[in-house]
Amino acid sequence: MTGAHVRRIGFVGLGIMGRPMARNLARAGMEVIGFSRTRASIDAVADAGILPGASIAEAVDRAEVVITMLPDTPDVVSVAKGEGGIFACARPRTIWIDMSTIDPTVAAALAREAEDCDIRALDAPVSGGESGAIAATLSIMVGGARETFEEAESVLTVLGTTVAHIGPAGHGQAAKLCNQVIGALTLLAVSEGLVLAERSGLDTSAVLQVLRGGAASSWMLEHLGPRMLAGDHSPGFFVDLQLKDLRLVAETARRLSLPLPGTATCEQLFRAVSAAGGGKLGTQALITVLRRLAATET
Amino acid sequence: MTGAHVRRIGFVGLGIMGRPMARNLARAGMEVIGFSRTRASIDAVADAGILPGASIAEAVDRAEVVITMLPDTPDVVSVAKGEGGIFACARPRTIWIDMSTIDPTVAAALAREAEDCDIRALDAPVSGGESGAIAATLSIMVGGARETFEEAESVLTVLGTTVAHIGPAGHGQAAKLCNQVIGALTLLAVSEGLVLAERSGLDTSAVLQVLRGGAASSWMLEHLGPRMLAGDHSPGFFVDLQLKDLRLVAETARRLSLPLPGTATCEQLFRAVSAAGGGKLGTQALITVLRRLAATET
Repeated sequence: MTGAHVRRIGFVGLGIMGRPMARNLARAGMEVIGFSRTRASIDAVADAGILPGASIAEAVDRAEVVITMLPDTPDVVSVAKGEGGIFACARPRTIWIDMSTIDPTVAAALAREAEDCDIRALDAPVSGGESGAIAATLSIMVGGARETFEEAESVLTVLGTTVAHIGPAGHGQAAKLCNQVIGALTLLAVSEGLVLAERSGLDTSAVLQVLRGGAASSWMLEHLGPRMLAGDHSPGFFVDLQLKDLRLVAETARRLSLPLPGTATCEQLFRAVSAAGGGKLGTQALITVLRRLAATET
Repeated sequence: MTGAHVRRIGFVGLGIMGRPMARNLARAGMEVIGFSRTRASIDAVADAGILPGASIAEAVDRAEVVITMLPDTPDVVSVAKGEGGIFACARPRTIWIDMSTIDPTVAAALAREAEDCDIRALDAPVSGGESGAIAATLSIMVGGARETFEEAESVLTVLGTTVAHIGPAGHGQAAKLCNQVIGALTLLAVSEGLVLAERSGLDTSAVLQVLRGGAASSWMLEHLGPRMLAGDHSPGFFVDLQLKDLRLVAETARRLSLPLPGTATCEQLFRAVSAAGGGKLGTQALITVLRRLAATET
């Protein structure tokens, strides 16, 4: 089997990210059997020709490649190892690609356990948000055996434009944590800069326009700066998922005895957004906590 | 006089940024008389057809537009108001464009004083670093009267690709401080993410490659990430000048009663780089302090 011949994909997890990704695979001519915990999520993709699976087993059964796109580490462990899960139901030699963002050490451990079940695991978390998932322009960071990566590459290139093999199992997740550190802190950068512009009484849209052209430019400024200024907090990426990723970063950094002072400050501020009830807002709501810190009344 | 007819420019300050900017003006066919405190800086641009001025007065005398590109607020105040300075020597109706990064309140005050001398002032700090100055792709943030901006625009478009009128006198400098907040914190983002990659034992060049394609991408990652990994600390922008800008930010934020927790952390870390003797290194040396924080020996 080479990637080019992959015909049948089991897709578990049809949330904000999983839905457009599964749609892109179906559009590319693959037979996609989708499963999600909520029936509504499955129905939401029926129009795209994705076959509804009644269970994980049904999505996994007879698939050549199984993709998981789930919120957190325990979800992935449960779908992989639980009763009626991937390890129990997948055919021998299936390639399982976990595209969720989870603990790198758990990803490495799951890959070893998968091998014992004759399943070939890749950890392949993504960057690029909902817009990247829809446009199939995700960056995909892959850990696992190189030959498995090469077999799966033609599936991954349907989903993203930058697909890179980083190293052995777990290294995709470890790279994703680096991505999350940079993304979260860059978002804090944009938030602090724009709050300063607001409080300085500047024409913020003129400021945003000129910042875009210089050394302060970033994906975050380009995509979320305008939303911050417009007060549009609709989620491309939930604050609570950002907090989950920053917790994984904090655990990893603690294990490595690595001080990350900026990231630590950033985590505190995201926690404040969540504490104020903003956990299901998009990460650009980070600016609201800075505005609140600068409130002119108590 | 419209910008299209500007023929003679006095240029004061021929440092890392000023030199290539003056060269670009000369290349565009303008007559540029340059002055710098050190003779070596003047000699360094002689090849580009820039006429050496023996004094500020000589650079300013008979110029239609005077540009200053100096390190800090006191330098600009001195060149503007000092004996033999711009206010004393420039012809009536001269447009003086200060492209240095200085205190926004001082910029606004200088513009008022210039008006009393029949000199029309613009504050027009830039973003884009040495590479942007050389390639004439700077972003230029302009404060001052709109009609003066419109007269000067054809000079500014020789130096940069994004030229925006932000608002009245001082607003260019205020916008630049927002730019500096975002730039400095984005650089901290890149530093912390890459140190995490190093300490996680990842293939850092593979990580950098994939990060570039996703939501963590930024000008800083693109331009300074590779230098950080290569240990190349040659200056595009000095650590000590970054610290000067962060001091201006801190003073402005204090005046506005605006807490900027990420920027404050960032300033402390840049101060640590300078304290260790790195003031004349490029800002990408920020990563060295994080590596030192994670040192395995005391």
